[in-house]
Amino acid sequence: MSGPVRSGPTGLAALFALGAAGGLIGDMCHVVSGTTAYLEDPLPYVWESQLWFPLMVGSGTAALGWIAVRLGASAGEAERHDPRREGASMIAAVLALYALTAIMRGEPAAVGIVLCYSAAALICARFAGDRVDLLCAVLAAAFGVGTEIVLSAAGVFEYADDVEQIAGVAAWLPALYLAYGVVAARLGVLVAASRA
Amino acid sequence: MSGPVRSGPTGLAALFALGAAGGLIGDMCHVVSGTTAYLEDPLPYVWESQLWFPLMVGSGTAALGWIAVRLGASAGEAERHDPRREGASMIAAVLALYALTAIMRGEPAAVGIVLCYSAAALICARFAGDRVDLLCAVLAAAFGVGTEIVLSAAGVFEYADDVEQIAGVAAWLPALYLAYGVVAARLGVLVAASRA
Amino acid sequence: MSGPVRSGPTGLAALFALGAAGGLIGDMCHVVSGTTAYLEDPLPYVWESQLWFPLMVGSGTAALGWIAVRLGASAGEAERHDPRREGASMIAAVLALYALTAIMRGEPAAVGIVLCYSAAALICARFAGDRVDLLCAVLAAAFGVGTEIVLSAAGVFEYADDVEQIAGVAAWLPALYLAYGVVAARLGVLVAASRA
Repeated sequence: MSGPVRSGPTGLAALFALGAAGGLIGDMCHVVSGTTAYLEDPLPYVWESQLWFPLMVGSGTAALGWIAVRLGASAGEAERHDPRREGASMIAAVLALYALTAIMRGEPAAVGIVLCYSAAALICARFAGDRVDLLCAVLAAAFGVGTEIVLSAAGVFEYADDVEQIAGVAAWLPALYLAYGVVAARLGVLVAASRA
Repeated sequence: MSGPVRSGPTGLAALFALGAAGGLIGDMCHVVSGTTAYLEDPLPYVWESQLWFPLMVGSGTAALGWIAVRLGASAGEAERHDPRREGASMIAAVLALYALTAIMRGEPAAVGIVLCYSAAALICARFAGDRVDLLCAVLAAAFGVGTEIVLSAAGVFEYADDVEQIAGVAAWLPALYLAYGVVAARLGVLVAASRA
Repeated sequence: MSGPVRSGPTGLAALFALGAAGGLIGDMCHVVSGTTAYLEDPLPYVWESQLWFPLMVGSGTAALGWIAVRLGASAGEAERHDPRREGASMIAAVLALYALTAIMRGEPAAVGIVLCYSAAALICARFAGDRVDLLCAVLAAAFGVGTEIVLSAAGVFEYADDVEQIAGVAAWLPALYLAYGVVAARLGVLVAASRA
C-alpha cells in the first residue's frame, strides 16, 4: 500500500480496546484505594468502574492515536524494530504511574505532586518522539482534566478529602493525563506502522 | 578461543555469588518488613535468611544464566560495549523491585499487584534481548513460585496475613520472579561474553 | 569557536539556577514530610528552605558541571541530538529520587536504603557518560554528606528520629548525592555543548 500511513478501523478498535482495558485497571486502583468514589451509578459497573469511564478512555486513546498519525507522527527506530517491546513498555509505564497515584493518599500532598510529575516527565521524555506527541499530551490533559472537573462538580464522582485537590480533582491528575496522552499518541503510531 | 561462548566454572561461580548476594539483600527486605517470616530454622541464619535461601537463589541464577547461553542468547550492542553498566542496571532494577514488594503491605492488594507487575514488565522489556530470556523468566517463575508454594504449605515460612496471597505465596511473587529470570539470563550472557 | 568547550558565565548561571530550583523543590519534600527540620533560622526562608540551602545546591551544581567539563567530559550522542530531552530526564529522575526519600519515613529503614541506593544506581548507570561523572558523584557525596554532618552536629537542622541515621544524617543521603552528582556533571556537559 502506498500513500500516508493510516490508522484504519481495525487499528482504531485496537486502540479503543487498549485504552478501555488500561482505564479499567487504573480506575480499579483508584476505587479500591479510596482515592475516588462514584457517587452516581446510572450505568452498570464494569469491574470497579461505571461503564462510561472505560468508554471515555478507550475513545480518547483511539482519538489521540488517530490525531498523532494524522498530524504526521512517525515511528522511531526502536518502535519499527521492536513494536511489541516498545508498546508493552509504554503501557506498563502509564499503569505504574496510575498505581503510584493510588498510593499517594497517606503521603504529604506536595511530595506526591513532585513524585507524580517527575515520573510523568520521565515517561514523556522516554516515549515522546515528535512534537505532535506533546500536543497530544496537552490535549489529553485539557480534555481529561476538564471532563473530570465537570463530572466532579456535577457530583458524579469525587476524590477523597485527603487527596490534595484543584477544582475538585487531584493535583497530580494533569501529570497522569500528560503521560497518558504521549503514550496514546505513540500507540497510535505503533498500530499504524504495524499496518503499513 | 573459537567455538561457542561458554559460561565456564568461574562464570558460573560469579553468577552464583551475584544471585546469592542479591537474594540475601532482597530477602532481608522481606523479613525486616514482616512480609515473610521463617517458621523453621533447621539451618543457620545468614543475615536475615535461612542458609537454604541464598543457596537456592544463587543456584537458580547460575542455572538460568547457563541455560540462556546454552540456548544461544547472545549479548546486544549495549551489553558488549559497556557490560558493567548494563549489569549494574539489571541488578539494581531487580533489587528495587524486591524492595518495592516489601513496602506494599499497607497498600490495597490490587494496587500493589498492578504496580509490581507493571514494574516487572518494564524490567523485562528493558533488559530481555532474546526469546530465550522470556523462557528463562517463565522457568524462574514456575520453579521459584512452585518452590515457595511447597515450602509455604510445609510450614517452613509464611507470608504475612495482610499480604494478598495465592496458594500461600504473595500475589505479586510471579512478577518478581519473571523480572529476576530475565536478569539472571542476561547476567549469564554478560558473564559469558566477558570471557569470550 | 575552536578550542576546548567551556561553561562560560551564562552557562554557570544556568547551572546555578537549575540546582537552586531543584534543591528548593527537593528540600520542600523533606520539610513538609517532616524528614528534616531547620532548628536555626539566621537567614530568611525561601519557600520551605533556609536561604543557604538553595545557594549551596546551586553553587554545587555549577561547580560540578564546571569540573566535569574541565576534566574533559563530553556529550554523548543522545545528549548532542536531543539535549532538552536528556536534561529533562536527568532532572526529573533526581527529583523523583528526592521525593522517594521523603516518603521512606514510615518504611523499615533497611528497605528504604535498598530502594534508594538501587534507584540511585539506576540513575547513575543511565546518565553517567564518562568516568569523570562518577568522580563528580563521589565529590558530591563527600562534600554534600560532609556538610550535612557538620550542620546537623552544629544543631542547624536535624533529621527526624524515625529516619535511620549515620553520623546525624539519613542513611540514604549518600545515594541521593551520588545521583545528584552524576546529573550535575551531565548538566554541565549539556550546557557547555549547547554553547559550542
